[in-house]
Amino acid sequence: MLAMTPPANLDALRSRLERAAAATAAAGLDALLVSPGPDLRYLTGYDAVALERLTCLVLRAAGDPVVVVPTLERAAAVASPIGGLGLEVTTWDELDDPYALTVGLVPAARRLAVDDRMWAVKALALRAAAPDAEQSAAGAVLRELRMRKDPAEVDSLRAAGEAIDRVHARVGDWLRAGRTEREVGRDIADAIIAEGHVSVDFVIVGSGPNGASPHHELSDRVVQHGEPVVVDIGGTMPDGYCSDSTRVYSVGEPPAEFVAYYDVLQRAQQAACELVAPGVSCEAVDAAAREVIEAAGYGERFVHRTGHGIGLETHEDPYIVSGSTLALEPGMAFSVEPGIYLEGAHGARIEDIVVCTTEGAELLNQRPRSLEVVGG
Amino acid sequence: MLAMTPPANLDALRSRLERAAAATAAAGLDALLVSPGPDLRYLTGYDAVALERLTCLVLRAAGDPVVVVPTLERAAAVASPIGGLGLEVTTWDELDDPYALTVGLVPAARRLAVDDRMWAVKALALRAAAPDAEQSAAGAVLRELRMRKDPAEVDSLRAAGEAIDRVHARVGDWLRAGRTEREVGRDIADAIIAEGHVSVDFVIVGSGPNGASPHHELSDRVVQHGEPVVVDIGGTMPDGYCSDSTRVYSVGEPPAEFVAYYDVLQRAQQAACELVAPGVSCEAVDAAAREVIEAAGYGERFVHRTGHGIGLETHEDPYIVSGSTLALEPGMAFSVEPGIYLEGAHGARIEDIVVCTTEGAELLNQRPRSLEVVGG
Repeated sequence: MLAMTPPANLDALRSRLERAAAATAAAGLDALLVSPGPDLRYLTGYDAVALERLTCLVLRAAGDPVVVVPTLERAAAVASPIGGLGLEVTTWDELDDPYALTVGLVPAARRLAVDDRMWAVKALALRAAAPDAEQSAAGAVLRELRMRKDPAEVDSLRAAGEAIDRVHARVGDWLRAGRTEREVGRDIADAIIAEGHVSVDFVIVGSGPNGASPHHELSDRVVQHGEPVVVDIGGTMPDGYCSDSTRVYSVGEPPAEFVAYYDVLQRAQQAACELVAPGVSCEAVDAAAREVIEAAGYGERFVHRTGHGIGLETHEDPYIVSGSTLALEPGMAFSVEPGIYLEGAHGARIEDIVVCTTEGAELLNQRPRSLEVVGG
Repeated sequence: MLAMTPPANLDALRSRLERAAAATAAAGLDALLVSPGPDLRYLTGYDAVALERLTCLVLRAAGDPVVVVPTLERAAAVASPIGGLGLEVTTWDELDDPYALTVGLVPAARRLAVDDRMWAVKALALRAAAPDAEQSAAGAVLRELRMRKDPAEVDSLRAAGEAIDRVHARVGDWLRAGRTEREVGRDIADAIIAEGHVSVDFVIVGSGPNGASPHHELSDRVVQHGEPVVVDIGGTMPDGYCSDSTRVYSVGEPPAEFVAYYDVLQRAQQAACELVAPGVSCEAVDAAAREVIEAAGYGERFVHRTGHGIGLETHEDPYIVSGSTLALEPGMAFSVEPGIYLEGAHGARIEDIVVCTTEGAELLNQRPRSLEVVGG
């Protein structure tokens, strides 16, 4: 909104709409119903905010797509790539029933899928408007498209990775003993925007024992000398693609015990990154990191999966997790972020975004992975 | 996250949980299932981000509430008011099925409600885990609580109103001919944060013809001398409550035609505000504005409802719309924002947040409603 939206690649959007319609038909679905969110942006380039009034792309297995919008958002929709694509736009007025209008575009539908992030209240209203149709999650169809990034999307993720790397390069300017996590976090948040993101999605500054809570964000805890600090940060770029990278800093020299397991973690993260190649399963990448950590006796301290896909959402398919036999393909992009957490003491996590290439992997984050000691 | 969260009023939260459980029972529901979002924050004070891993408050009609969280978010949940409330917290590990765990907390449930903004993919997974239970939207229960603000919530909305008023007071510093809407919008966005909000929720700068598109945001259009400009802005305060206010500025003297209908609009907005009192219906407030506009011959140009409730969401119940016979009560807070839009030329909207009191109404926005002429 505040930043200029990059010009849309209408050919890429057209191709996505066509492939999604074909996949919808192949899945035996009559239509995908897609409300504002990452799926809508992926398919049409329309970066609409989800509000209570229904906006919905009706992507039919048979027939052209139609976009249902409130009358007072028609101008905004047509000004988006929806206009350039020449998609049919149907409007509804304040006192109309947009749900009946939407399902009416797919007469006699037996199977309708709603986008994964549609608000439940809207999904329930669509169900009520089409009581004879079975409802499912559109992610089953759309994840297959979205998790295979085209070269332009990889370029977008690469730019996002470079932007967050520039923020990490400056963390040493702000992180020192005597400041609170929140103070450091504010400087980082400002830099996330200054380096080219349009939104700050998360800022984790986990000092000392807070580093042992993987989803800790910020607190008023004062950073102490001799403490490791986990800094896990990310934002969204003007074109919608996300960054996410974790590095560990030490304010002065860290405890010897920490240095020992940090070395294990670094080897684990490297082993997982090096395994990435077409045909390798997600669970194998997870196992590559986990085995190094287990062999060193820290298996119980690695309490989460190894990674998550990334694109128009920070967390999306493919997930790098035990039990996922999905084979990697060129264009799949995901985090590799094993961690070791010693509750009550400290913790560490190293995270890079990795994209599978035809030969192996490209790392989209390039900051050194060794422990960076910053001014105490 | 970046700003310190204000201390929670645990007594208020306890009362909400109790009243919500009683309302759940009264509605014939076995439980409300509430994922991260405004409903969860309202009930527990836990300001969690919605991610793919399920976090869910299970608010049972019979039995104490339980919060289901991923193990790696347990520390964050307990650090929130959930800890102070002493709520039971149940964790799930990476390879567990959180949906089975959640519905298992309400054995033999026949009717389960999910929060309105739960991701559809989660609502569908909960449905699959409890196939014999009817699923509905929890808003039917929770809106009855949330739309009746307690005095502390009105204080929060008043503070939000004052913050956005301070931003409007400075618009004249930034809005002038020769600048683009986006440039002006960036200055406004910075001020929204500087004046105390933690997030910028929307910035509409609709110059000239763009003012005639009610949901226009920002463009690279250069503001011209002699143009009216609609500025509709809002953000979220550290305690989660939202601001939303619209004023119209004119860069130099506006067209005579505009001045004529702006006067109509101002009278319409005032008439609606003055009607607000306990027992008055929402549709009557809508009609009070609409009748003034229709009488002046602009009825077709007022293309939306008169207002929306506001609180932890920018748009929530009660909606000030034709057809709503809901009678206002003290503590109901909503926008009064009629508009007149001349497509292709210009438009105007005046918006204040109004709270119904025991005697009438309090306006939470205090900036002058007359057209403000700013430096050309």
